[in-house]
Amino acid sequence: MSVSSSAVLLGELRAQTPLVQCITNSVVTNFTANTLLAIGAAPAMVDIVGEAGPFARVAGGLLVNLGTPIPEQRAASEEAVAVANDAGTPWVLDPVAIGSLPIRTALAEKLAAQHPFAIRGNASEILALAGAGTGGKGVESADETEAAAPIAMRLARDLRTVVAVSGPVDLVTDGERILRVSNGDLLLTKITGGGCALGALIAAFAAIRGEFSPVEAVAAAHVVYGIAAERAAAETAGPGSFAARLLDALYAISAAEVSASEQVRAETAPGGGA
Amino acid sequence: MSVSSSAVLLGELRAQTPLVQCITNSVVTNFTANTLLAIGAAPAMVDIVGEAGPFARVAGGLLVNLGTPIPEQRAASEEAVAVANDAGTPWVLDPVAIGSLPIRTALAEKLAAQHPFAIRGNASEILALAGAGTGGKGVESADETEAAAPIAMRLARDLRTVVAVSGPVDLVTDGERILRVSNGDLLLTKITGGGCALGALIAAFAAIRGEFSPVEAVAAAHVVYGIAAERAAAETAGPGSFAARLLDALYAISAAEVSASEQVRAETAPGGGA
Amino acid sequence: MSVSSSAVLLGELRAQTPLVQCITNSVVTNFTANTLLAIGAAPAMVDIVGEAGPFARVAGGLLVNLGTPIPEQRAASEEAVAVANDAGTPWVLDPVAIGSLPIRTALAEKLAAQHPFAIRGNASEILALAGAGTGGKGVESADETEAAAPIAMRLARDLRTVVAVSGPVDLVTDGERILRVSNGDLLLTKITGGGCALGALIAAFAAIRGEFSPVEAVAAAHVVYGIAAERAAAETAGPGSFAARLLDALYAISAAEVSASEQVRAETAPGGGA
Repeated sequence: MSVSSSAVLLGELRAQTPLVQCITNSVVTNFTANTLLAIGAAPAMVDIVGEAGPFARVAGGLLVNLGTPIPEQRAASEEAVAVANDAGTPWVLDPVAIGSLPIRTALAEKLAAQHPFAIRGNASEILALAGAGTGGKGVESADETEAAAPIAMRLARDLRTVVAVSGPVDLVTDGERILRVSNGDLLLTKITGGGCALGALIAAFAAIRGEFSPVEAVAAAHVVYGIAAERAAAETAGPGSFAARLLDALYAISAAEVSASEQVRAETAPGGGA
Repeated sequence: MSVSSSAVLLGELRAQTPLVQCITNSVVTNFTANTLLAIGAAPAMVDIVGEAGPFARVAGGLLVNLGTPIPEQRAASEEAVAVANDAGTPWVLDPVAIGSLPIRTALAEKLAAQHPFAIRGNASEILALAGAGTGGKGVESADETEAAAPIAMRLARDLRTVVAVSGPVDLVTDGERILRVSNGDLLLTKITGGGCALGALIAAFAAIRGEFSPVEAVAAAHVVYGIAAERAAAETAGPGSFAARLLDALYAISAAEVSASEQVRAETAPGGGA
Repeated sequence: MSVSSSAVLLGELRAQTPLVQCITNSVVTNFTANTLLAIGAAPAMVDIVGEAGPFARVAGGLLVNLGTPIPEQRAASEEAVAVANDAGTPWVLDPVAIGSLPIRTALAEKLAAQHPFAIRGNASEILALAGAGTGGKGVESADETEAAAPIAMRLARDLRTVVAVSGPVDLVTDGERILRVSNGDLLLTKITGGGCALGALIAAFAAIRGEFSPVEAVAAAHVVYGIAAERAAAETAGPGSFAARLLDALYAISAAEVSASEQVRAETAPGGGA
């Protein structure tokens, strides 16, 4: 990945203002919509049966987040994903808290097999989706995240998708390449929706039209979000103020700042294509 | 409209603390309730079947916002509107994103015919409700808003309601008079719920008991909200901080400040009553 | 209650990071989750049928808040409470706005009889639950809160629970002892969820493992929350900024600060055990 591909993608996102449909949990709807507006995308929380499908045809990208999956949202998610796939709309799966919770776990497995553009979760969620774990309490250590790398790569290859594992260092892989993004701040784990909003941002970057690889688009979302978090954390030590400042930083962040501050290490897996 | 009618109404609102029932979308419930509390009203998000109706009888005003209309809310909206009309409770319709989305569009058309006190939307939503468009992406230019004026006036006359079109200059009309409110700030379009909270504020102003014309009450909500937005925007350049400051400004704004800062141009339509 | 029991419990809470399941209303989900994260607990908004029950077995504490009780949440609440009682998971009931609203009132009465660890509400809600009132408009005066004391004590004895009445001075009673907590700030009544988040905090304190009496745990939640509110209010005069600062203060508050600032008066009822 060139030093500035995230910066280029940010510029494209703002120029294109992609329409991002979100089917997401009730805890983070507001923060998610504000995150998308702040970065320059157009959010649309169209998540009911009978509308989620038709809208997935005109949306630029779609997020399906399983955080509070009431029956209406479960049906709307399936409706939207089917249409998104038919229409070529890239969509992102965020399998929140899967593992031991039976309903969302079954739905996540079903949706994951339907060719998402990307899947984002923490290590325990990704392990659970790969059949290699039963879920955790949420925030993982750097060691736990790194330990999930081989399984994330296999999952990405098996499902032909990009898998992103959030942690102190984020892993983004398409099964061949693996990008490690070190941008970010611990305060992201002290506000609710810190990961969920990132999932929506990935859908926004996925919606950009142009020549770029999926893994670069997903990594760019992590880079931009992480740098904005660093900037917000530099201005405040408390989570309430941090959440507001994070939106301010996403709104203000420039492509030059992204190029200057991004911390990404790329690696090609042994045996993977270069 | 006298220079200070908005200021007078703000004073009345704070003295009366109207109880405002909100049936609104999942993205903006928190910000909407906080907006109502900040201005001095008492919000009540009573939006389930079996309670929405009875509560509409005791509420001072009612907001029906169709942003995320799950089946329960659709049924609750119809229940509440029927009782509101029976009890004389003024209610406001916010037909979010209608046009191409089939379920909310059908419901909006049905409700609009049931004598709302006011209808608030952006130009594309108002055009869609009038059968003159199929919806847009949300934020419109001043030209687009102004172009909707004749259709908004006709819609207001046809439905015997007040129609408010949000834009760089807001239009408020009862079909005879048209008031153009220039207060506001572009940052309102960079946070989610900027328009939805205004809809709730209109319901609060509609709930004020006393002698005033509906068009003045609706315009007053726009004026107060717009001035608060200007004040908030003067203190911050980012949307996250702006949202918090907007609530602070609504809480602090004085009647004198409203009188001094309001920017309203009144016009009576050719052939309309004076 | 020793001067520092609230401080000790805060230290324990942070050391144990209790997992707190919340079934709560759509208006306050975000603020509630952020409140729990800020104080050092782990929130989980697991509120659907089929998951709420199993999760109540592994959660450290459970909140059932009836603010916007759609049918799915009503069923999930009953499912979760049954399992919580079977598993010994302490759970808190917040009977929001009961009295004249029929559906939540019936559910609150049913749940209250199922041995909650604590019940939190304002005076009108507690009176309604005790069959001594039909609900009010929300914020009560100090006189109204104090007048509810005998009924709160009787309710606590009848239901074998702790009853907390929020007001200018909060009352916390197990039917024998009554603790009056004076910490807090009027701005808590100017933001939505000011009381609902306290309910979640009570569930977090209830989840602490160790030797302490229920009434002390419930009072500790009030003390910590109240002191954080005082600190936030000292830094801002507006409700939008206050909400953010309240989370900052909950995150930053130390045990020493709690010991130094807590304002609790304890009393044993005539005829009650010492």
